[in-house]
Amino acid sequence: MNIKAPRGTVDILPEQAKNWQYVERVIKNVCDRFHFNEIRTPLFEHTELFQRGVGDSTDIVQKEMYTFEDRGGRSLTLRPEGTASVVRAFVENKLFGSAIQPVKLYYFGQMFRYERPQKGRMRQLNQFGVEAMGSADPAVDAEVIDLAMTVYKELGLTSLKLVINSLGDSESRKNYREALIEHFSPHKEELCKDCQTRLTQNPLRILDCKKDRDHPSMKSAPSMLEFLNEESRTYFEKVKTYLDQMDIPYTVDKNLVRGLDYYNHTAFEIMSEAAGFGSITTLAGGGRYNGLVEDLGGPNTPGIGFGMGIERLLMALEAENITLPVEQQLDSFIVAFGEKAEMESVRLVHLLRENGVQVDRDYQGRKMKGQFKAADRVHAKFVLILGDEEVDNQVINVKHMQTGDQTEVAISDIISYMQTVTKEMGGIS
Amino acid sequence: MNIKAPRGTVDILPEQAKNWQYVERVIKNVCDRFHFNEIRTPLFEHTELFQRGVGDSTDIVQKEMYTFEDRGGRSLTLRPEGTASVVRAFVENKLFGSAIQPVKLYYFGQMFRYERPQKGRMRQLNQFGVEAMGSADPAVDAEVIDLAMTVYKELGLTSLKLVINSLGDSESRKNYREALIEHFSPHKEELCKDCQTRLTQNPLRILDCKKDRDHPSMKSAPSMLEFLNEESRTYFEKVKTYLDQMDIPYTVDKNLVRGLDYYNHTAFEIMSEAAGFGSITTLAGGGRYNGLVEDLGGPNTPGIGFGMGIERLLMALEAENITLPVEQQLDSFIVAFGEKAEMESVRLVHLLRENGVQVDRDYQGRKMKGQFKAADRVHAKFVLILGDEEVDNQVINVKHMQTGDQTEVAISDIISYMQTVTKEMGGIS
Repeated sequence: MNIKAPRGTVDILPEQAKNWQYVERVIKNVCDRFHFNEIRTPLFEHTELFQRGVGDSTDIVQKEMYTFEDRGGRSLTLRPEGTASVVRAFVENKLFGSAIQPVKLYYFGQMFRYERPQKGRMRQLNQFGVEAMGSADPAVDAEVIDLAMTVYKELGLTSLKLVINSLGDSESRKNYREALIEHFSPHKEELCKDCQTRLTQNPLRILDCKKDRDHPSMKSAPSMLEFLNEESRTYFEKVKTYLDQMDIPYTVDKNLVRGLDYYNHTAFEIMSEAAGFGSITTLAGGGRYNGLVEDLGGPNTPGIGFGMGIERLLMALEAENITLPVEQQLDSFIVAFGEKAEMESVRLVHLLRENGVQVDRDYQGRKMKGQFKAADRVHAKFVLILGDEEVDNQVINVKHMQTGDQTEVAISDIISYMQTVTKEMGGIS
Repeated sequence: MNIKAPRGTVDILPEQAKNWQYVERVIKNVCDRFHFNEIRTPLFEHTELFQRGVGDSTDIVQKEMYTFEDRGGRSLTLRPEGTASVVRAFVENKLFGSAIQPVKLYYFGQMFRYERPQKGRMRQLNQFGVEAMGSADPAVDAEVIDLAMTVYKELGLTSLKLVINSLGDSESRKNYREALIEHFSPHKEELCKDCQTRLTQNPLRILDCKKDRDHPSMKSAPSMLEFLNEESRTYFEKVKTYLDQMDIPYTVDKNLVRGLDYYNHTAFEIMSEAAGFGSITTLAGGGRYNGLVEDLGGPNTPGIGFGMGIERLLMALEAENITLPVEQQLDSFIVAFGEKAEMESVRLVHLLRENGVQVDRDYQGRKMKGQFKAADRVHAKFVLILGDEEVDNQVINVKHMQTGDQTEVAISDIISYMQTVTKEMGGIS
């Protein structure tokens, strides 16, 4: 009997978890600087939320959700993305009435999509995302993009491509939609099954199709940008000007429409251009969703946000050969031999930890030599050596492993001694 | 149309999230000192894992699991507790072969139990837990208890009660089991339905029954401790001696058996004794589970761990009136008026954030007075004031909000100036 992790999921083991912790610390720090605050929503929601909040015609809702009934007969769904849940929480908790506007939120967490697992596409995936709700200022669009780029930059990524587009307001989209239907209708039979449905349901998403991307009608399709009305064009110009002010390079891609139904005005994606990154290059994507809050039962409130995959971020770091500065050493390890020494070491280990010092000891009944080996394996900076004789004399020997220096310290002084030497070396991780 | 969070789940809003972040930071720091490393396992597992790893006869498996089929027909279950998943990951990733033994792991995460929601009992709950696998040394038992107590102590909790018991090894348990059956059989009809089943399936859990706790046969029931064989008794004595060495007070409760099937030797619980904490007082519970790794397909490996509820921890902090030292202020807020100033502020906000300074600005088109009010609302320590005239003169005014002092700083110097003054005040949170 050997039970494995479910298909499309993985365990994050301690060595990798250190990288995850580091990435999360950097992201949290960036969010603090940008004045975004964390929100945590449940891992599952009523299925209806995603049908309405993500869009009934999307692949996510139609094919990829983990939907089930609970013991009370409710239809629940593991969240496939973060925005719908955050907007639901914004409405339910009446954050639209908050004294501080816009409401700037970020989240971390697992998302669930039933897809064919492959590199960079897991059934349980982790996302970091932000949502800024309550302002229609194009400077917020630039700020949100800036936040994502700052995260990548601080982690050391350089081979990045930022792509932006405008999907305009509803009037502009309506006109564009009609133009797209007119453009693609003569080629309907040549397009894939999904695109044939999209032609009536949501023709914008034809531009996003992976199967039909090389069809000649794609290249000649009209551009959204030609259909932007005055207001939408001005809005998009401002976003670009602000990005210029921030010295953030970008490319306008008129075919960028994103997979979700609710976007308008600014849409953006950030891709890795690192050699050998693989075929799925999107690291983050987002856009403006004025109207979504209202769709989910709240007052008319503009909003914008993005989602960023953590697995793909780690893949991009790997592709760029970036090693994160995570702590690989332990402050100290205590080597004890003799019955009295062992008993005293239980007390000392407890006290050292209580006073901020990292320390470990042997729990395998190893002899002295084996204990030193164990100290080596955990890369202890200091080894504290205690025998019965030392206990009688109330001293303990401290060996600095890098220099080999050894110092005898009174047991009564060992805590402050260790606090001092470990602080000198950079303290606990 | 107004969709709510599913019953038994809650949103953690920004104000509360700060407390969660603080608690998690303290816990992670304590784990670092104790040399426990983080592991992350999927939110769902094959249902079979919990049937085997938690125990088919437990309430959790029989009544409380969120079990569903995925689109491929697999029976999956949202994890109801952490140990089974960590042990599964330990086996699947062959951590039993790790050079460093014992393998000391911790985890954070959501657990899911379909119960009647009430204060301190949610359907989605959060747990921190540790598992130490690979050592049968009773000092590990004491270390794991020490870790839990250290977390509570560092957060400021004082009204705590640690209760321990020994369930002995399998031989001791077998003898005890027979004694219990003999003891309770004459009273079978007076006990609750569940206990009547337990009498044959798992008589130890009768002692844990909430319905029958006042039945006279409970008080007169034989104690596990009388049935411990020599080895088990010695083991338990050592655990107690080590706790004494660490100066950790405890009470032995012979009726403590814990709800899970897999425990042996040491079992423990930590309860809040704070006035008004409520009826569910258990904050953390755990025990030794030698044999579980083997049950789940690994080599014979001893193990011990605990799970700690984060919601209940926060409730205990509240009951003891403890306010966590979380940052409520923002480094700075920029007030800009005039078109040139607004454009320049986009650049400066970007640069300040890039260089480690927390800063926010107005995105609501507010006039100067409204911007100052917004700065107040976010408790900005410094307000940076920028008009078109200042842009022309390449200066910016920095107002220290607590003292009212105002300084004119060259725009070219503002980053280093802000880095200095915010660092003097304790830097970013």
